[in-house]
Amino acid sequence: MKRSDRLGILTVGMGAVATTLYAGVEAVRRGFTPGIGSLTQIGRLPIAALPGTPSKPISEIVDLAPLAGVSFGGWDLLENDAYRAAARAAVLSPTDLKRHRKFLSAVPAFPGVADPRFTTRIAPKFAKKEIGKRAQVEALRADIRKFRKMTKSDRVIVLGCMSVEIYQPPQPVHRSLAAFEKGLDVDDPTISPSQLYAYAALQEGAPFVNGTPNTTVETVALQELAKRKRLPLAGSDFKSGQTYMKTVVAAALRMRMLGLTGWFSANILGNRDGLVLEDPQAFEAKRVSKTTVLDDICSAPEYPALYSSIEHLVKINYFGPRGDNKEAWDSVDLFGWLGYPMQIKINFQCRDSILAAPLALDLLLLTDLAARRGESGALPWLAFFFKTPLTAGKMKPGNNPSVQLKVLESAIVRLGRKRRSA
Amino acid sequence: MKRSDRLGILTVGMGAVATTLYAGVEAVRRGFTPGIGSLTQIGRLPIAALPGTPSKPISEIVDLAPLAGVSFGGWDLLENDAYRAAARAAVLSPTDLKRHRKFLSAVPAFPGVADPRFTTRIAPKFAKKEIGKRAQVEALRADIRKFRKMTKSDRVIVLGCMSVEIYQPPQPVHRSLAAFEKGLDVDDPTISPSQLYAYAALQEGAPFVNGTPNTTVETVALQELAKRKRLPLAGSDFKSGQTYMKTVVAAALRMRMLGLTGWFSANILGNRDGLVLEDPQAFEAKRVSKTTVLDDICSAPEYPALYSSIEHLVKINYFGPRGDNKEAWDSVDLFGWLGYPMQIKINFQCRDSILAAPLALDLLLLTDLAARRGESGALPWLAFFFKTPLTAGKMKPGNNPSVQLKVLESAIVRLGRKRRSA
Amino acid sequence: MKRSDRLGILTVGMGAVATTLYAGVEAVRRGFTPGIGSLTQIGRLPIAALPGTPSKPISEIVDLAPLAGVSFGGWDLLENDAYRAAARAAVLSPTDLKRHRKFLSAVPAFPGVADPRFTTRIAPKFAKKEIGKRAQVEALRADIRKFRKMTKSDRVIVLGCMSVEIYQPPQPVHRSLAAFEKGLDVDDPTISPSQLYAYAALQEGAPFVNGTPNTTVETVALQELAKRKRLPLAGSDFKSGQTYMKTVVAAALRMRMLGLTGWFSANILGNRDGLVLEDPQAFEAKRVSKTTVLDDICSAPEYPALYSSIEHLVKINYFGPRGDNKEAWDSVDLFGWLGYPMQIKINFQCRDSILAAPLALDLLLLTDLAARRGESGALPWLAFFFKTPLTAGKMKPGNNPSVQLKVLESAIVRLGRKRRSA
Amino acid sequence: MKRSDRLGILTVGMGAVATTLYAGVEAVRRGFTPGIGSLTQIGRLPIAALPGTPSKPISEIVDLAPLAGVSFGGWDLLENDAYRAAARAAVLSPTDLKRHRKFLSAVPAFPGVADPRFTTRIAPKFAKKEIGKRAQVEALRADIRKFRKMTKSDRVIVLGCMSVEIYQPPQPVHRSLAAFEKGLDVDDPTISPSQLYAYAALQEGAPFVNGTPNTTVETVALQELAKRKRLPLAGSDFKSGQTYMKTVVAAALRMRMLGLTGWFSANILGNRDGLVLEDPQAFEAKRVSKTTVLDDICSAPEYPALYSSIEHLVKINYFGPRGDNKEAWDSVDLFGWLGYPMQIKINFQCRDSILAAPLALDLLLLTDLAARRGESGALPWLAFFFKTPLTAGKMKPGNNPSVQLKVLESAIVRLGRKRRSA
Repeated sequence: MKRSDRLGILTVGMGAVATTLYAGVEAVRRGFTPGIGSLTQIGRLPIAALPGTPSKPISEIVDLAPLAGVSFGGWDLLENDAYRAAARAAVLSPTDLKRHRKFLSAVPAFPGVADPRFTTRIAPKFAKKEIGKRAQVEALRADIRKFRKMTKSDRVIVLGCMSVEIYQPPQPVHRSLAAFEKGLDVDDPTISPSQLYAYAALQEGAPFVNGTPNTTVETVALQELAKRKRLPLAGSDFKSGQTYMKTVVAAALRMRMLGLTGWFSANILGNRDGLVLEDPQAFEAKRVSKTTVLDDICSAPEYPALYSSIEHLVKINYFGPRGDNKEAWDSVDLFGWLGYPMQIKINFQCRDSILAAPLALDLLLLTDLAARRGESGALPWLAFFFKTPLTAGKMKPGNNPSVQLKVLESAIVRLGRKRRSA
Repeated sequence: MKRSDRLGILTVGMGAVATTLYAGVEAVRRGFTPGIGSLTQIGRLPIAALPGTPSKPISEIVDLAPLAGVSFGGWDLLENDAYRAAARAAVLSPTDLKRHRKFLSAVPAFPGVADPRFTTRIAPKFAKKEIGKRAQVEALRADIRKFRKMTKSDRVIVLGCMSVEIYQPPQPVHRSLAAFEKGLDVDDPTISPSQLYAYAALQEGAPFVNGTPNTTVETVALQELAKRKRLPLAGSDFKSGQTYMKTVVAAALRMRMLGLTGWFSANILGNRDGLVLEDPQAFEAKRVSKTTVLDDICSAPEYPALYSSIEHLVKINYFGPRGDNKEAWDSVDLFGWLGYPMQIKINFQCRDSILAAPLALDLLLLTDLAARRGESGALPWLAFFFKTPLTAGKMKPGNNPSVQLKVLESAIVRLGRKRRSA
Repeated sequence: MKRSDRLGILTVGMGAVATTLYAGVEAVRRGFTPGIGSLTQIGRLPIAALPGTPSKPISEIVDLAPLAGVSFGGWDLLENDAYRAAARAAVLSPTDLKRHRKFLSAVPAFPGVADPRFTTRIAPKFAKKEIGKRAQVEALRADIRKFRKMTKSDRVIVLGCMSVEIYQPPQPVHRSLAAFEKGLDVDDPTISPSQLYAYAALQEGAPFVNGTPNTTVETVALQELAKRKRLPLAGSDFKSGQTYMKTVVAAALRMRMLGLTGWFSANILGNRDGLVLEDPQAFEAKRVSKTTVLDDICSAPEYPALYSSIEHLVKINYFGPRGDNKEAWDSVDLFGWLGYPMQIKINFQCRDSILAAPLALDLLLLTDLAARRGESGALPWLAFFFKTPLTAGKMKPGNNPSVQLKVLESAIVRLGRKRRSA
Repeated sequence: MKRSDRLGILTVGMGAVATTLYAGVEAVRRGFTPGIGSLTQIGRLPIAALPGTPSKPISEIVDLAPLAGVSFGGWDLLENDAYRAAARAAVLSPTDLKRHRKFLSAVPAFPGVADPRFTTRIAPKFAKKEIGKRAQVEALRADIRKFRKMTKSDRVIVLGCMSVEIYQPPQPVHRSLAAFEKGLDVDDPTISPSQLYAYAALQEGAPFVNGTPNTTVETVALQELAKRKRLPLAGSDFKSGQTYMKTVVAAALRMRMLGLTGWFSANILGNRDGLVLEDPQAFEAKRVSKTTVLDDICSAPEYPALYSSIEHLVKINYFGPRGDNKEAWDSVDLFGWLGYPMQIKINFQCRDSILAAPLALDLLLLTDLAARRGESGALPWLAFFFKTPLTAGKMKPGNNPSVQLKVLESAIVRLGRKRRSA
C-alpha cells in the first residue's frame, strides 16, 4: 500500500467528538488555528528525551496523510446532517459553528444501526431499516463503498466514536471469525452494533480505530479478520481528560515512592455521553477502563508497603447545565515518610471533545500510516492515546503516559526509517 | 575510597527537615515504618521502563551505606538539642516525638554561624562566638572532626538544610578558589554562611548536598575546590511538593500538545521557612528556582503556538496556623483544539518536611556512593531531586521528572556496574 | 413540671454522634474545653441583631438543665459498651479516648431493636430477643424505667441518632394513634424500629428528638400521642455540614438576587452512616431532606427569572479511608447581571459528629426546657438545627439559617419570660 | 424635592463597572434581560422574613426613578468614548458589545482629573488641562451642569467607581469644610482627585455614592458639606464577590458557635483594578476594607473561646490572562466541639463588574430616593452593599449581610410609608 493524497475518514457516530474533529481539521486547513493538542500536527521528536537534543517535527519524520486530502463522513442515529449534529453537540462556539456551516453541511451522513439491547437511552430517529445483522453489515459495506466513491478517496479508515454500549463480557460468538460470521447469519443477539461497524470496515479494507469503551477491537474474531485482511486495529477508549491526569499524577507519586490509601474521582457532564452513562450497565464498561489504570501504574506486588490497599472510587454524574464542559474532581489520599498522610485535590474544568478530537486525528493518521507500512492486527504502540490499550504478545505498554509516549516515539522513528529504507 | 559501615551525616540547620530525617531513619531502623518516599530504601529498577520487565530493589543494584551505620549531627542557631528542635518544628506526631526522644536528645548539636546580612528574620540564640570568616571556617572544621571522632564515622557528608539566605548574584569573590580563600582572609562580606559550611565540609573531605535555594554548590570557587579534593557536590533546592507537581503537570500538558496562557501558584505555610521567605530578598532565591522550571519544560522556541506567552506567578505566604502543613494552590489556564480554553486547579495539602526528608536521605546515600566510586564535582544525574539542578558540561537533565528519573536510573545502573567491574 | 438538677439522656444508637456527645459533655464538665459549637453553652443573645446592643449568655436568659446533672445511656445493635463504641467510631483522638475511658465505660448500654426490613447493611450483634413489636415496645419502656432509676434522673429525654432506615412513605398504620397501637398488636411490618423507640419514649413521659432522616416525629400517630402526653417532639435530621453550608450560600445568593442554573453536591464519608447510605433505599430518605432545602430558599414562584430551572444533584459516596472525616464538594452554577455565568466551588473537610454533637446537646436541653414550660407536640422553632424541620400550623420557619436563628432567639426570649412571669 | 422622570447618572471612571452598568441598564430597558442581581429591579419584600408571608416587589413599595428616564455620562483618564471604554474593559460579550454600540457611543465622556500622587499605575491620556485644585473643581462643576443640560435631567447623582487611590489617612485639610475649601485655594496636595469629584457633585446638588475604597464620603469636610446642602452620601467599596462570601460564611460559622484559627484569602484578577492594586500603597486601602469585616462579625470580646486569635491574610494578585474574570480562593481553618479542627475551601470564579453593576444601580436609585425624601448626610442603612459601610451616630449596621439586609428592608418600608403619609 502506498501513500496518496486522498484519505476518507468515516466516523461511527456524529456526536460531539466527530463534529469537533471535522470542524477542527477544516479550521486548521483554512489557517484559523494550528492543530493544538495534536502530536501529528505540531509535535516534534524527541519530545521528552534529554533536553539539548535538537528536535524535528513529527510530520517531517513520517509521511502522514496530508490534511488537504482528508474527507469526512459518518453514521448517526439522530441527525442526517453534520451541521445540525454539531449545533446539537454545542461544543463549537457560535462563531466557529457559523464559520464552518457550509463545510459541515456537506459532510455525508448515513443512517446508523440501532439495537435497543445495547443502547437504552437514545431514541433513534435516523436508523437503518435493514433487519438482521447480516443485512445490516451489507448495508454498512455499501455505505463505505459509496463514501469512497463520493469523496474519491484512495483509502478509507473508520473511527468508532458512538455512544457507549451496554457492557457485555466476551461471548462464544466472539471467539473466532468463523463463529462471528455464523452469528451474523443467525442474527446472534450478542453481536453489538459497534462490532458490525468494525466488521464491515475491515471487510471493505478499512482499518478501525476504537475511541469508545465498547468491546470491538478486543474481540478475537475481529482481530483474526484484521490479520487476515492485513489491516491494523487501534483502541480502546480515548484517554482524554480526568483519566489522563490520573495516570500522570499516579505515576508521579510512584516515581517518588509515595503511598496511596484512597482515590476518589467524580465528574459531572451534560453531553449525550453523560446521559448514556447514567445507565449503570453502560457505565460498567467505562468504569472498568477508568479504574484499571491505577492498578497497573501502582503495582502492589512490587510495592506492597505503598499500594496494597487503595480504595478507588469513580463516579460519573449526568448534569445538564454543563453540556460538553465536563468538570472532574479527584481527591487523592496519599502518605509519605513515617506514614504521614497528605491530600491532593484536582479540579479539571475541561471539554471532553476538545481534548478527544486531536487524539482522534493522531490515531487516524498514524493507523493509516501503519497500514501503508504493512502493519496489521492490534497496534500496541498507540497506547498513549487510550484508557485500555491493546496489547500484542509481550508488547504491553501499560498506562504510564511517559512510558507510553516513549513507545510511541520509538514506533514513529521506526516507521520513518521504514520509508527511508524502502 | 571503599564502602564501610559507618557514615556520619551532618546537617546545616536542625529545623523541620533535619529532625524529620533523623527521626524517620531511626523509625525505619527500629522497624516502625518502611522508608516511604525514598527510592534508595524501597525503590526498584526499572521503575518506569516497559512494564513486564522484572524489577529489582535499588539496594541490591548498588552498595549504598546501610542505615544501621548512619550517625547524625548538626549545626543550629536556635537549639542545642535535636529533641527540642524537633518539638519546635512540630512535624512529628506526639507519639513519634515521644518514641524517639532519647535518640534525638543524643544527636550532637554545634552552634551555627550567624550573619545578619544574610538571614534577617532569625534571632540567633546559639551562634558561634568566632569573629571573622576564616576563624568561623576553622571552627566548623573542628566541629566536623569532632563529630567524626565522636560517632566513629568512616566518612562524613554534609547536608545544607538551613534557612533561606538573602538572594545575592555571584560576586567577584566567588569566581575562583583563590579569590574565595583570599575573601576568607579579608572577611569579605559577600561570602555567605552557607558557603562557609560547604567550604569547611570539602576541606574536611566531606561531600556537600544543598537542599536549599542558597547559592553554594553553584559557585565556581566551591566547584573548583570539590574537583581538587575529588569530592562530589549535589544541589540545589529540594523539589518536594508544589514544584514537583508543577513539573509533572506541565510535562503532561506538553506531552499532549496543550497550550498554556497562565499559571498561578500560591501557597501558605507556617514553618520557619515561611517566616524567612516573608522577606522579599530571601524569597527572590526561591522564586527564581520555582519559576524557571516551567520555561524549561514548556519550550517556547520549539512550540511557539503553545507557550510563547505564559503568565507565571508564584506567591508564598507565611500563615502561622498551618505550621509545617503547607497548602498549595495551582490554577492553570490551558487551551486545546481550536484554541478553546480549559482550567485545572490543584490543591496540595502536603507536609514540606515529610516530602523533603526522604529526598535528603536518597541524596546523601547516592552522593556518598558517587564519592566512593570516584565521582567528583557537580553531579547532574541527581536532577530528579532538585528545583534548580546542577549541570555539568553538556549534561543538562532539565526539569521534566520522567526524564530526570531516567537519567538517575541510568546512573544507578552505571554505578552498580562499576562495582561489579571493580 | 419544674426544673431540677438531674436529666437523663438516652440515645437510640451509640455510634459516632452519640459517643462524641457523651465524651464532649464530660470534657466540658472536666474543664478541658468550652462547649464549642453549642449555643446553649457559649451562645449569647442577641446573636445576629444590630451590633452595639449589649449581649447576654443564653444560659442566663433561660434556666437550662445544668451539664453537672446530665447522665447518659443508649441502645445499640453492635456494642454493649460506650467506650468500645467510641473506639470503633474513631472520632475521638487517642488522647481524648484514653482520657474519658472510665467515664464512657460506665455509660449503660441496652440492646437495640433490629429489623432487617429497615436496616439492611448492619449485622446486629447485640439485639433484643423479644419478638413482636408490642413486646419490643414493652422491653424499651422497661429500659427507660431502669435507666431513670439507675441514674436517679428526675426527667428522661430520648435522642434518635441511629442508622438511617430504608425510606418508606406514610402508611395507613401511621395515620392515627389508634391505628398505630393496633399495628403494634398485630405486628404491622410498616412500623419501623425508630417509631418503636419514639412511642416507648413518649409513653414513659420522655420527649423525643429525631436527629436522623428517619420518619418518626413526622407521623400523625406519634404527634397525637405527644399531644395527649403533653410532651414535645423535635426533628428531623441534623443540619450539620454540607447542607448547612448549602442553605447559607443559597440564601446569600438569593439576598443578592443572583440566579442559579445548577447545584451539584457530592460527598465522601467512611463512617457507618456512609455504609448504610450506600443502600439506595436508605439514601432516599437523606436525599429528600438534602434537596428540598434549596427549593424552599430559592423560591421559583417569586423569582421565576432566577430559580425556575435549577438542576440539583446530591450524591453520597461511601469511602472507607476517611472514617468520620467527611469531605463535601459543592459546585454551584450561578448567573448575574446581563445573565452572565459564574461558578462557586466549596470543599468542606468536616467531621460529621463534631458538627452534630453540639446540635444534639442544644436540642436536648431546649426541648427539655420546652417540656418544663408546658409546650407539647412539634416544636417548629427548633428549625435552625434540622434539614427537614417540623412545622406546626402556620409556623413554617423554612430553611434559611438566618431566619431560623431569629425564630429560635425569639422562642428563647419567650421561654425566658415565661419563667420570670411564672 | 419630588420624583420626576429624568435622572442623570455621572460615573467617576468609565471602566469595567461603569460601562457594564450603562449597557446592562440599556439591556433591561430593551427587554433583553431582567435586572438580575438588582434588588430594586427584581427584589421583593419581605425577602428574608418568615416564609409564608406574601411578598411584594420593592418597586411597588417605593417610587424609585424609572430606568426609562435614566441618562448616563462619565469622566475618564483613558477613553473619551464609552463604547471604546467598554471594549477595553472586556466584560461584555462580543454580542452585547455590538448590540449596545450605538447606545454606548452616545454616552457623554468628560476628561478626568489626574494626580500622579494618588494614582501611580495609570498613564492618563484624556485628562483635564486645568492646573490647581480650585480650577479643577470648577471644571468638574461645569461638566455636571453641561451634562444635566445635555440630558435634560431633573436630578443628577454621581457614582465614584474610578481606580483605587494611594491610601492616605485623614489629614488636617479633611477635618472641616472650611479647612477643605482653604485647601482647594492653596492647592493642598493631600486633597485627592476622588475628593474633588465628591465636592463638585455636592456643590452642584448631586448626591455622591462611593463604590471604591478611596477615602471620600468618610471625611468630616464632605459630610459637613452634604449636611449643609441637605444631600445624602453613600459608601464605601462595593461588597461584591469574595468579601461578600466571606461575611456570609463567617456569619454562618458564628451562628453555629464554630471557632476560627485562620482565614486565608487570595485572588487573581487581570483588570485595571488589579493593575492598580499591585501598588502596595493602593492595596492598603483595599486591604483595610477587606480585613476589618471579619473582626466585626467574629466578635472576640463576646466569644473569646472562638475568635481571640484568628490569623487573617488577604492577598490580591494581578494576573493578566483573567481580565475581569476574577478568581478568589478562601481557605478557612475552623474548629468545633472538643476543639477539633476542620477546613473549608471556597473557590469563587466570579466577574467583578457583573457583581458590582447591579449594586451600583441599586445604590444610585435608593440614594436618589433618600434625597427626594429629605435624608441627608451618611446613609448607614445602605451597609448591605459596602465593605466599609458609613455609620451615623449609633446607627452601625455592621458587616453581617443578613442583619444589613434587615436594616435595608426596614429603611425601604419606612421610605415607602413616607410617601404614603406625604
